[in-house]
Amino acid sequence: MIVEVIAVGTELLYGHTVNTNAAAIGSRLADGGLEHQHSSVVGDHTGRMVAAIRLAMSRADVVIITGGLGPTQDDITREALAEATGRPLVFSEDYADRLRRWWASRGREMPDSNLRQAEHPKGSDLLENPKGTAPAIRLDLGDRLIYAVPGVPPELEALLDLHLIPDLTERADKRVVLNRILRTYGESESRLGEALADIYSDGNPSMAFLATAAEIKIRLTAKADSTDKAEKLVAPMEAAVRERLGDLVFGTDDETIEQIVMDLALAKGWTIGTAESATGGMLASRITATPGASAFFAGSVVAYDERVKVEVLGVPGSMIVEHGVVSEPVAMAMADGAASVLGCDVAISVTGSAGPDPQDKPVGTMVIAVHTPERTMARTVSLPGDRERVRAYTTTGALHLARRAMLGEWWQGSPPSGRWL
Amino acid sequence: MIVEVIAVGTELLYGHTVNTNAAAIGSRLADGGLEHQHSSVVGDHTGRMVAAIRLAMSRADVVIITGGLGPTQDDITREALAEATGRPLVFSEDYADRLRRWWASRGREMPDSNLRQAEHPKGSDLLENPKGTAPAIRLDLGDRLIYAVPGVPPELEALLDLHLIPDLTERADKRVVLNRILRTYGESESRLGEALADIYSDGNPSMAFLATAAEIKIRLTAKADSTDKAEKLVAPMEAAVRERLGDLVFGTDDETIEQIVMDLALAKGWTIGTAESATGGMLASRITATPGASAFFAGSVVAYDERVKVEVLGVPGSMIVEHGVVSEPVAMAMADGAASVLGCDVAISVTGSAGPDPQDKPVGTMVIAVHTPERTMARTVSLPGDRERVRAYTTTGALHLARRAMLGEWWQGSPPSGRWL
Repeated sequence: MIVEVIAVGTELLYGHTVNTNAAAIGSRLADGGLEHQHSSVVGDHTGRMVAAIRLAMSRADVVIITGGLGPTQDDITREALAEATGRPLVFSEDYADRLRRWWASRGREMPDSNLRQAEHPKGSDLLENPKGTAPAIRLDLGDRLIYAVPGVPPELEALLDLHLIPDLTERADKRVVLNRILRTYGESESRLGEALADIYSDGNPSMAFLATAAEIKIRLTAKADSTDKAEKLVAPMEAAVRERLGDLVFGTDDETIEQIVMDLALAKGWTIGTAESATGGMLASRITATPGASAFFAGSVVAYDERVKVEVLGVPGSMIVEHGVVSEPVAMAMADGAASVLGCDVAISVTGSAGPDPQDKPVGTMVIAVHTPERTMARTVSLPGDRERVRAYTTTGALHLARRAMLGEWWQGSPPSGRWL
Repeated sequence: MIVEVIAVGTELLYGHTVNTNAAAIGSRLADGGLEHQHSSVVGDHTGRMVAAIRLAMSRADVVIITGGLGPTQDDITREALAEATGRPLVFSEDYADRLRRWWASRGREMPDSNLRQAEHPKGSDLLENPKGTAPAIRLDLGDRLIYAVPGVPPELEALLDLHLIPDLTERADKRVVLNRILRTYGESESRLGEALADIYSDGNPSMAFLATAAEIKIRLTAKADSTDKAEKLVAPMEAAVRERLGDLVFGTDDETIEQIVMDLALAKGWTIGTAESATGGMLASRITATPGASAFFAGSVVAYDERVKVEVLGVPGSMIVEHGVVSEPVAMAMADGAASVLGCDVAISVTGSAGPDPQDKPVGTMVIAVHTPERTMARTVSLPGDRERVRAYTTTGALHLARRAMLGEWWQGSPPSGRWL
C-alpha cells in the first residue's frame, strides 16, 4: 500500500516553518511498514491544492493531507478536498456541539469562526482530535483513501497514533519494511562508503548513508512479507558492517548518544554535570531532553562570563591569563570545578570560540574536557561552519568523549587516525 | 520567475531526517522575491527522481534539486539529472584535480569514490563548493534552468548564498514579493483571526496566520514590481493590524524574542542570567544562540538536582519542604539566588513538572520567576503537551515574561483576560 503526503502552507514554501510534520508522518509510515514514495508541499492556493491532491490520488493508494484545517480564513484544505473529489461540503451539527462543549469545559466562549471546523466533504467521517478543536477528516473512496489532518504537530501526532496508522496497518498488504540504523561517529561519509564498498547493495537488503550533525547513520533496509523474514535478510549485512567498522558503530536504531551516556551513568551509579561556556547550556538541554534525566543529571554551570568561571567554578584567574580562556587547562579546571560545585561524579566541560567573532582563539577552536572519578582529560578540536553548527557539533562531540571516558577507553592515547575526536 | 524545489533522499520520506533544507532554500527565495509554488521529496530511486525532475520542469522556470550528490553508491542525482534532460554524464579532469588538491591540503589522501563528484551532465557547469568536496551543478537549457546542490545543510546554504540566489535574482523579472511578519504572543490563533476578520484578505496584500511554539505570526504579503510599491500596499494593512492588536505584537519580521530581550538588556546596561530546573539549560542555550550574547549574558545555574538548588542557589531547604520544589516561592528564591551567584542584574528562573512523570505538581505545571533590580515576581502556568513541547513553550514564555519585567510592565497586576502569561 503506497502512501503519499501533502503538506499545505505557504509558510512551508518560504521557510517560515520547517516541515517537521513530514518527518513525523514518515517515521510512523516506516515503523508501520507502509510504503512512502512521494511527499510534497503546496501553498494556501485552492487551484494548486486541488491539482496536488489529484496528482497524489493518481499514484498512491492513500493520501494524507496535513495543514489548512484551522479556524482562520486562510485555512482552505476542506474546500480544496471537496473540489478535488467532487464532494460538496456538509455541516456536522453533532461536531459543532462537541466543539461548543470543548470550549465550555475550559470556561471560555467559542469564537464563531471555529464552526468552520464542523464542515467536511459529504460522505467523509470526522475523527476526534484529542489535543485540539479541529477534527481530522477521513474520506474513503473505495480504491483511494484520503485523510486531512490538522498541521499543529502534537495534534497531528496524536491523530496519527490514534487513528491513521492503526487504520492503515490494518488495511495494508502487510509487506514489512524493516530499517536497521547503525549509528557511527568519528569517520567521514566517503571513508565509510569505501570501507563498505563490497558490502554495499541497492537491492534487498539495501544500504544508505545519512550524514547528520557530526554522526553518520548507515541504514540497512529489507522488505519481506514478515518481520522475521526481513530480519533474516538484514542480519548478514548488519554483521558484516559491524565487523568492518568495529567501535565506530556506537548505537543502533533510535539509540541516541544521550541515551547511551544515560545508560552508562545509571549502570555505574554515577551522576553527571556540565560546565559550559561556548555551548551555553545546549549540552545540559540535550541531556535533560531525555525523560528520566533526573535519575543521574545533577545540573550545569553555564559560565559564559569569565567571572563566573573564576568565582563559581573556581578556575584560577592566573590560569586564564597564562593559557587563555579557550585552553585545555581551563577546560579541565572547569570540569573539576563543576564536579565539586555540583557534587557529581562525572563532569563534562566545554570552552571555545564559536564565532562569529573570535574569542581568545580562532573561530571554531573548541576544547572539551571530561572529569571522571578516575581522571580528567581534555581534547582540542577545530570545527568548520557557523555558530550554530559549531555549537551542535561540539555538543555531540562532548557526549561521545564522555562516553569513551566513562568506558575508560579514552585513556589509551590519541584517537585512531582520521577520527576527529 | 517560478522556482521549484526537489529534495532527494529516502531518509526524508521515512522521517530519519527533517527536511530543513527546504526551509533554508524557501526563506532565501522569499528574501529574493522569487516565487515558490511547489516543493517535493523523492527517495533515492532513479525512475521516480527522473519523473519528479520532469514534472518540475513542466511547471517551473527554475528547478533546484538538493541531495544525492555525495560520494557513496546511493547518491544518484547526477545520473537522474542526466537521464531526465537527455544529457550524458561527462568527467571533469579539472574538477578532479581540484578535489585531489582539496584533500592534499588537509594532509589526507583522497578516497577514489570522491572522483564521482567530478561527473556532471554534458553542457552543465560545476560551481565550487566552499564548504565541502561535492560541487553544485548548473544546467542552463535556455527556457529552463536546473541546479543540483549537495544536501549537507552548511554546504547547501553556502552555495545558495554564493551562487544560486544572486544568479536567480539577477535573472528574475524583478517582481517583488514582500513579506511582513508581525509576531504576536498571548492570544490564540482563532481569537486573532476573529479580531482581524474585517482586515483579512487573500488578495494583494494578503494575510496568513502561522502558529509556532507559543507564538502566532501574522504574515502580510504584497506583490508588486518594486519594493517601494509593495511596501505601500502592505503599510495600511500593517497599521490596521497593529492598531487592533496593540501590545500583543511584540516583534517584526525576523526579530525574535531573544533578540528583543538582548536589545533591552543592552539599552539598560543590565546583565542577565538564568536558573533552570525543568528546562535544563534550554533557556540559556536559546539566549546564547544569538551572536553577541557575551555582551550581556553572565551564565546559568542549571539546578536539576534539588541539592544544587539548595547548595548553589541558596534556596532554603525548609521552603522546598513547605511549598514543594515546583512553587512560586522556590522559583523566586532561584531567581534571587542566580542574580547573587552569577552577579547579574536580571535573573530568569524556571521550575516545573515537564513530564512524563509528575514532579511535585501535576505534569505541565510550570513556574517562571524574574528578578530585576526593582523586584522579583513569579507566575504559574499549566501547559498541555509532552515534555519537549512543555519545555519549549516554557522557554518562550520565560523570555516574554522577562521582556515585560524589564519594561516594568509586569507589575501592573494580572495579564489581560485570555492571555496565558
